[in-house]
Amino acid sequence: MFRHQKELQFEVNVDRPDPQLARQIQEVLGGQFGEMTVMMQYLFQGFNCRGEEKYKDMLMDIGTEEIGHVEMLCALISQLLDGASPDDQAEAAKDPATAAILGGMNPQHLIVSGLGGLPTNSNGVPWNGSYIVASGNLLADMRSNLHAETQGRLQVARLYHMTKDEGVRKVFRKMLARDRYHQYQWMAAIDELEEKNGVIVPASFPAKDEKEAEKHGLEFWDLSEGNESSQGKWATGSAPDGAGDFVYLSDPAPQGQKPVMDIPDKTLHHDLDAPAGGVEKVVKKVADQIKRK
Amino acid sequence: MFRHQKELQFEVNVDRPDPQLARQIQEVLGGQFGEMTVMMQYLFQGFNCRGEEKYKDMLMDIGTEEIGHVEMLCALISQLLDGASPDDQAEAAKDPATAAILGGMNPQHLIVSGLGGLPTNSNGVPWNGSYIVASGNLLADMRSNLHAETQGRLQVARLYHMTKDEGVRKVFRKMLARDRYHQYQWMAAIDELEEKNGVIVPASFPAKDEKEAEKHGLEFWDLSEGNESSQGKWATGSAPDGAGDFVYLSDPAPQGQKPVMDIPDKTLHHDLDAPAGGVEKVVKKVADQIKRK
Amino acid sequence: MFRHQKELQFEVNVDRPDPQLARQIQEVLGGQFGEMTVMMQYLFQGFNCRGEEKYKDMLMDIGTEEIGHVEMLCALISQLLDGASPDDQAEAAKDPATAAILGGMNPQHLIVSGLGGLPTNSNGVPWNGSYIVASGNLLADMRSNLHAETQGRLQVARLYHMTKDEGVRKVFRKMLARDRYHQYQWMAAIDELEEKNGVIVPASFPAKDEKEAEKHGLEFWDLSEGNESSQGKWATGSAPDGAGDFVYLSDPAPQGQKPVMDIPDKTLHHDLDAPAGGVEKVVKKVADQIKRK
Amino acid sequence: MFRHQKELQFEVNVDRPDPQLARQIQEVLGGQFGEMTVMMQYLFQGFNCRGEEKYKDMLMDIGTEEIGHVEMLCALISQLLDGASPDDQAEAAKDPATAAILGGMNPQHLIVSGLGGLPTNSNGVPWNGSYIVASGNLLADMRSNLHAETQGRLQVARLYHMTKDEGVRKVFRKMLARDRYHQYQWMAAIDELEEKNGVIVPASFPAKDEKEAEKHGLEFWDLSEGNESSQGKWATGSAPDGAGDFVYLSDPAPQGQKPVMDIPDKTLHHDLDAPAGGVEKVVKKVADQIKRK
Amino acid sequence: MFRHQKELQFEVNVDRPDPQLARQIQEVLGGQFGEMTVMMQYLFQGFNCRGEEKYKDMLMDIGTEEIGHVEMLCALISQLLDGASPDDQAEAAKDPATAAILGGMNPQHLIVSGLGGLPTNSNGVPWNGSYIVASGNLLADMRSNLHAETQGRLQVARLYHMTKDEGVRKVFRKMLARDRYHQYQWMAAIDELEEKNGVIVPASFPAKDEKEAEKHGLEFWDLSEGNESSQGKWATGSAPDGAGDFVYLSDPAPQGQKPVMDIPDKTLHHDLDAPAGGVEKVVKKVADQIKRK
Amino acid sequence: MFRHQKELQFEVNVDRPDPQLARQIQEVLGGQFGEMTVMMQYLFQGFNCRGEEKYKDMLMDIGTEEIGHVEMLCALISQLLDGASPDDQAEAAKDPATAAILGGMNPQHLIVSGLGGLPTNSNGVPWNGSYIVASGNLLADMRSNLHAETQGRLQVARLYHMTKDEGVRKVFRKMLARDRYHQYQWMAAIDELEEKNGVIVPASFPAKDEKEAEKHGLEFWDLSEGNESSQGKWATGSAPDGAGDFVYLSDPAPQGQKPVMDIPDKTLHHDLDAPAGGVEKVVKKVADQIKRK
Repeated sequence: MFRHQKELQFEVNVDRPDPQLARQIQEVLGGQFGEMTVMMQYLFQGFNCRGEEKYKDMLMDIGTEEIGHVEMLCALISQLLDGASPDDQAEAAKDPATAAILGGMNPQHLIVSGLGGLPTNSNGVPWNGSYIVASGNLLADMRSNLHAETQGRLQVARLYHMTKDEGVRKVFRKMLARDRYHQYQWMAAIDELEEKNGVIVPASFPAKDEKEAEKHGLEFWDLSEGNESSQGKWATGSAPDGAGDFVYLSDPAPQGQKPVMDIPDKTLHHDLDAPAGGVEKVVKKVADQIKRK
Repeated sequence: MFRHQKELQFEVNVDRPDPQLARQIQEVLGGQFGEMTVMMQYLFQGFNCRGEEKYKDMLMDIGTEEIGHVEMLCALISQLLDGASPDDQAEAAKDPATAAILGGMNPQHLIVSGLGGLPTNSNGVPWNGSYIVASGNLLADMRSNLHAETQGRLQVARLYHMTKDEGVRKVFRKMLARDRYHQYQWMAAIDELEEKNGVIVPASFPAKDEKEAEKHGLEFWDLSEGNESSQGKWATGSAPDGAGDFVYLSDPAPQGQKPVMDIPDKTLHHDLDAPAGGVEKVVKKVADQIKRK
Repeated sequence: MFRHQKELQFEVNVDRPDPQLARQIQEVLGGQFGEMTVMMQYLFQGFNCRGEEKYKDMLMDIGTEEIGHVEMLCALISQLLDGASPDDQAEAAKDPATAAILGGMNPQHLIVSGLGGLPTNSNGVPWNGSYIVASGNLLADMRSNLHAETQGRLQVARLYHMTKDEGVRKVFRKMLARDRYHQYQWMAAIDELEEKNGVIVPASFPAKDEKEAEKHGLEFWDLSEGNESSQGKWATGSAPDGAGDFVYLSDPAPQGQKPVMDIPDKTLHHDLDAPAGGVEKVVKKVADQIKRK
Repeated sequence: MFRHQKELQFEVNVDRPDPQLARQIQEVLGGQFGEMTVMMQYLFQGFNCRGEEKYKDMLMDIGTEEIGHVEMLCALISQLLDGASPDDQAEAAKDPATAAILGGMNPQHLIVSGLGGLPTNSNGVPWNGSYIVASGNLLADMRSNLHAETQGRLQVARLYHMTKDEGVRKVFRKMLARDRYHQYQWMAAIDELEEKNGVIVPASFPAKDEKEAEKHGLEFWDLSEGNESSQGKWATGSAPDGAGDFVYLSDPAPQGQKPVMDIPDKTLHHDLDAPAGGVEKVVKKVADQIKRK
Repeated sequence: MFRHQKELQFEVNVDRPDPQLARQIQEVLGGQFGEMTVMMQYLFQGFNCRGEEKYKDMLMDIGTEEIGHVEMLCALISQLLDGASPDDQAEAAKDPATAAILGGMNPQHLIVSGLGGLPTNSNGVPWNGSYIVASGNLLADMRSNLHAETQGRLQVARLYHMTKDEGVRKVFRKMLARDRYHQYQWMAAIDELEEKNGVIVPASFPAKDEKEAEKHGLEFWDLSEGNESSQGKWATGSAPDGAGDFVYLSDPAPQGQKPVMDIPDKTLHHDLDAPAGGVEKVVKKVADQIKRK
Repeated sequence: MFRHQKELQFEVNVDRPDPQLARQIQEVLGGQFGEMTVMMQYLFQGFNCRGEEKYKDMLMDIGTEEIGHVEMLCALISQLLDGASPDDQAEAAKDPATAAILGGMNPQHLIVSGLGGLPTNSNGVPWNGSYIVASGNLLADMRSNLHAETQGRLQVARLYHMTKDEGVRKVFRKMLARDRYHQYQWMAAIDELEEKNGVIVPASFPAKDEKEAEKHGLEFWDLSEGNESSQGKWATGSAPDGAGDFVYLSDPAPQGQKPVMDIPDKTLHHDLDAPAGGVEKVVKKVADQIKRK
């Protein structure tokens, strides 16, 4: 169960309204890596968390903090929209400078939300549940979390330069600081889990089952002409878990067959003839399958 | 520019059709972390890549490989659907066992694709562009790639147990092996980049600008009751880049204000009165803003 | 800012796992009127709320309660999935009864979430931000809230009969009780606001501006043959705000013109000729416009 | 079956083209509460309507009217786009005033629709079926309808101020008048249904089944600090159906347990250890379940 | 403006309920090529139609007919759901045959619509506006219409075999007949337009502007190994408008450059070094651009 | 399996950056008929292709070419964004001309992609899998392909006029030329298939089954007042396959019944009374069904 305190986590006071900036900031509120994403992602991971309590508790701590970040950004956007009105839009055509600013405004901030934040990104696309991840595998999810904070902080850093408003920048600095810590936090969690289980996810897939395909687990396939890709650690190094050395295949050949598929039943209303030489192909297909066993 | 070879990267020969499994496998074809996602993600990162050639080349190598993985999964799904027909559906009611299997089939495999793979996940939700990431920041994107291969391999590992079909499992083993290598690959790239630029993304945000908010960059805010979260490395350790030690705030107080917002222009057709004590609040708001500067 | 308590708002203990029911319950977690919707809707309304404090406080009270409802439903779904495994799926074909139950399972509960709740509806469609409403007009939003609780309670009532599990039903009874109160709550708020501002939203549109179109504000247009619709209060009654009596138009005639539109510039690459008699039409169009002024 | 008459329901003649306004008006054509929404909502409710004929007839009357509103808005948007051309865009950079207006234009009005209305909102997001509601419960759906007309009229009222074009405003006035009547209409229907069945939806859930959870049906849970929310009718009043008086819980305690969930089967490839004290927890969980019966 | 008649266009009387078939039929109601798609597509094309009246009138005729097809399918689905109830679901587990049928049911038909049709496809994905096309180019749109009726009739033909219910099949036969005529209809319109303007859309792009790229307008690029593709009319034939003979390029070479892009400004927070040999590349890039002019 | 060559298919060198044009060009990259659509559509059709090899080979040829078109457009967009920076946005307000241009920019090109192409359309809506078609019926899919190239070329032609940049126009000319050939190509394939199977899709639906509904296959239903639609070939001509002459029904009567549906089980919590005269209606319904057999 949750409780709410009236104060914002950090102070939000903009120097002056700026409806165009309000639109741009929607990206870090309701975009792919906005605060709604980390909020819902950590809460779902926490709600679904099984096993050791410390992970669940930690996820709930940060998920709960992120609800407050959504709150802060709504306050920020409301302040940036303060005083905007439909009338301004009708007047805008008269003055190019005003028109330009209002032309870059999100019309839904007037028509739909009446000067409030929207659950959408900077282009007005609604936030959706496929932005988030909660897989039930801790290491997999911590990597998602590190990544989300990485993209999130990158976007805030870019937005930072899109305004000179010191009040807005102050909020961004707090967010940059929190995103910095959250990157540290997930790195620490990843570190702990990799030490225990190894670096490959899932660690639990039985080695014996992967046996026959094993060598492909160390091969780099060079499928784009040029060999600049051979200069990286991924091409010449060793697996971090000591599984062996990487192999650079500079002209790899396909190892599969040309796929052959049957002609479907007529009730599917394709318009296919049997392929030329169809009988032979089907025979070959069966032969292949026998040989394979 | 691209070229296509007829053979599949690896052999695909199922033991027997299984329409329900065909539906389930759609998750790793057209789901959030399916092959369409890694294919489009690496291609877009490669197409947009600026700077050192070795990264672009490497992204194009693997992006090009992934197009072939989409191809393999379509072949796999087609084989699992071989022989299925609309007539079976009409007959199914008579036999519970048949009915059960067909009840779990994706109806679009009959009606829409005529026994072919679909650009959708296991529940029929279409793949969409917001599954992918190409940010123009190499380290950010490599983290996304590591994460995508992590979730992808986890899902294939789960699917592996959902069938006893040795032909299908053989394909999965190849995919597990490639996803293993791709995890190594992105780890190696991350390692290289973190050595050069540090672990926090973006590395380039000017330290002086973050100054005033600095301390929040090391604080864990305990906002869920209980303190099990204090047991992890994230609470008691040090920043991996030596920036300092983490601070566990067990009962953090909010540092912001209660947000106060103006009553909008009447052309927005809200139905708000001025708040009780409205004048005082506006005075206070202005006062706050003055004080802040 | 928010805080989290470990205990659930109400007890959640299912009698026995039931993966098919888990799928069905996703509707009231991540569907159009699920708990994610009311949670995000009340929080956004609260975050964006301007004017009298009591509305904002009330919205934050209930929005905060709803976060806990999402938490409860995740616990419920996890319990219903307890013990499910990929192996079961591979075995299911052998036994029609098992196959039937697993055929009705959401495959993502195994492959994607590893036995946890998903931010999606009962068909796997991701929750999205266009499910919610926060318009900045209090009465408009309270009507949305009453409606959301109405649909939500209706859906829970239907789900109630889809299981005999007393543990699950107990949770549903609590939800039905809360949804009952929340309907009362929004009715009370609506009542207050309608007393103050009148029943038509927005109340603030200037009567003089609506003058010329006024009569259409009391007309029922009968556009479907048959006149059963004349039997309702909407056809024969009076406006609740005393604006007048309703008028039933049993064979209404259109009052507009046949629309005529210009042929666009050739750079739009339409393939249109000038319409037959095009000159006359353009003349008439201009004439119409003159007459109109 | 339907029939079409050439004339528009009301006259549509704009004073002058305005491509930016055309974009803004898309909100009330193809947005969440645009005319496409009410059209499809009333038609689906009507098509699916069972029981007394007068409701079905009434829904068909208004649903049929709304198809004509989509028609009117397409005519309006086409007129506002009249004369716009791709060439203008190439020229725009030379003149700031022109550039500003065209910068605010929806590029799809040129590239995709060739100067016609689009089935999208003001930000270009396609209309989708999850905007609408047809639940098979009359009262539930009438509340949705009242709400849709409420938001729709609010949005038109805001748009009204975004233009000085008298031709456009005239169309808006007609729409405001119709939306006024439609609000009356749904209020009248709601009134009728509430008189018959009571105000809580669904009315038919058996009181005895709700027994044990009954008291929660009158409680206000204060979960946001501050008690301004106690000042409303929802906190101190009585249920409108005489079910009793509301109870304001100013510091409500959770009534559920800390949720405990089992460690899943290893084929799900989580990376969870048994929780510390895991055995005891499982014992307790079973004990709880026994106690509960 | 539109009017509604009570009778369905064709009779709809199913032999017996079948909830699983109800789910499957949703594909041709609310899927990519369902009746909602053709209805909205023809209406939007008609509403936006400029130029010769006969096209607009024809589009309105068929668009209006399609509204009635949506109506018919809703009636069909309602009848197939008649008598289904939540209780059945709770009972289903006891009997494998029942369980199988209900496992294949769309849970939203019970929970969300209360036994009515939904604006979604057979997997529950909501219909959306990006399914439709109205481009303002008549020939382009007629091709879309022919295609939509083609896919639509194909899907109905497949569904026909998924049931033995003669009542349902009778409805499908009417739909197949109408879809047959509608294919004829669009072919006739295409024929007329191609005769007038030629077969390439848009016909109006100035030949002189396309001059330099002209030869590429007749080349087949063989980019997949094997040359079976050389056996079709597309490889060896002539352009239907007499523009020349097709040219089969069996080993085409790329004609562009390796793309080189600048390192962005540091405020974008990429982590790119200047590429090795960066100076030379930039010099070359500029040189290329000079040479190009 | 696929391979990549470093060079672009055609040269891409813009004269000068233009961020607003970059946004507009997203339509033909990630829009409904953009290059992502044709790429994914042809690849899926090719991957799923059964029967004669020449079709599969041809689909793979062109699908592979289209991957390279996505690559070209990403290069084009990157060049148009070269040099744009967040700082410009902060400065823009000072100069109306700059502000206007930047107001029309896609903010995600700065914040999300860091100056690269996005998998979205010109309004920022993500590309999704429901844009594409692969039905397993060759003729149906070739019609889709012809249509896709038709809309695609139309959109490029319109974009051509939106810029004076000769470098951009040169790329567009190549695309127009390729789209010209691709229209020829699909026409040739359609021609071949129609000759073999006839023009109606699917050709394979048994004539005898369609018998009773046959006449409706030649009727034009005039449902929009006015009879301009009688002037086209679709009204007065003959079926292209000689099936007969079209029949123009100028005042067609519905042939179905008023639909009557049962009152559902009370566990669905509708609020319906039995309809007035309900018993008679049910009797009539049963009678109808008997009569029908």
